[in-house]
Amino acid sequence: MLEIPAGDHLERRVCHACNVIHYENPRIVVGCVPEHEGRILICRRAIEPRLGYWTFPAGFMENGETLEAGAARECLEEACARVDILSLLAVVNIPDARQVHVFFRGRLPDGRHAVGPESLETRLVEPSELPWDEIAFPSTEFALRTYLSDRATGSREVHLTTLSRRIGGHGKMPAP
Amino acid sequence: MLEIPAGDHLERRVCHACNVIHYENPRIVVGCVPEHEGRILICRRAIEPRLGYWTFPAGFMENGETLEAGAARECLEEACARVDILSLLAVVNIPDARQVHVFFRGRLPDGRHAVGPESLETRLVEPSELPWDEIAFPSTEFALRTYLSDRATGSREVHLTTLSRRIGGHGKMPAP
Repeated sequence: MLEIPAGDHLERRVCHACNVIHYENPRIVVGCVPEHEGRILICRRAIEPRLGYWTFPAGFMENGETLEAGAARECLEEACARVDILSLLAVVNIPDARQVHVFFRGRLPDGRHAVGPESLETRLVEPSELPWDEIAFPSTEFALRTYLSDRATGSREVHLTTLSRRIGGHGKMPAP
Repeated sequence: MLEIPAGDHLERRVCHACNVIHYENPRIVVGCVPEHEGRILICRRAIEPRLGYWTFPAGFMENGETLEAGAARECLEEACARVDILSLLAVVNIPDARQVHVFFRGRLPDGRHAVGPESLETRLVEPSELPWDEIAFPSTEFALRTYLSDRATGSREVHLTTLSRRIGGHGKMPAP
């Protein structure tokens, strides 16, 4: 049940059966934009939310791993692809989803990929082939656009921004 | 109790009284190095772990806030100080603590501070007065050293690293 524990100032989920306070803090989503010889690896989601839409490999960070290890694990799980994590690309606040998304630049050493259990399809595409109208999340679009923009200029900037979880608002995304 | 939910691959805390799966993911600690006219605001911890040791204001990010808002809130709570969050300073993996620490550069517009409920003492100190032998955590020391090093060169780099939660190993910290 929800109550304010002694010495705290916010409501927490307290389970009197387990006798445990379950603090619920923002969750970290980790991912990378994996490149192989100029092409980008994308996956079509086999799970909700946004089933059927496209993203690069990303998912919830697990306990005991680093951000980089989590991003590489997601690439292996969703696209059966080994990736070298290069540099930090973007840190995105999604306060209405209680999430922070952390994305890296990545490189596929051999370019091999295959459909993992959470994907319907995986593809290595040229930037001109990216399905902008079928991108899963605002943070996915932000990371892809900043990735390509930085690649064009050789920048290795880290982009910090705040976005809504709301989907379908791509037209309102700031230009990178 | 701990069990592996259907479709998952890791043990999770499942409460059959509440009928809820409590996913436990890494927690985010947010903070900032607040500067006022060349001096740094530090707090002596009134709570465990590391009671009595020094840190800059930092703590667990809460649901519904951004990283920047969380860092400013912690500065207000721990040192009763209003801070302007400037740029991203460091992202630190602490896998053995199941945490990611995200620290910003900050500026105190008026330099006012006071002891908050989680602090024994707050001080604005010159870099030469920082109590290096009494710093609370490895990530605190890492952020302070990179902050001062960047300030000397005018760099606004974002530093990504992995540290242990283990305290008392300051001698092994890499030079910034």
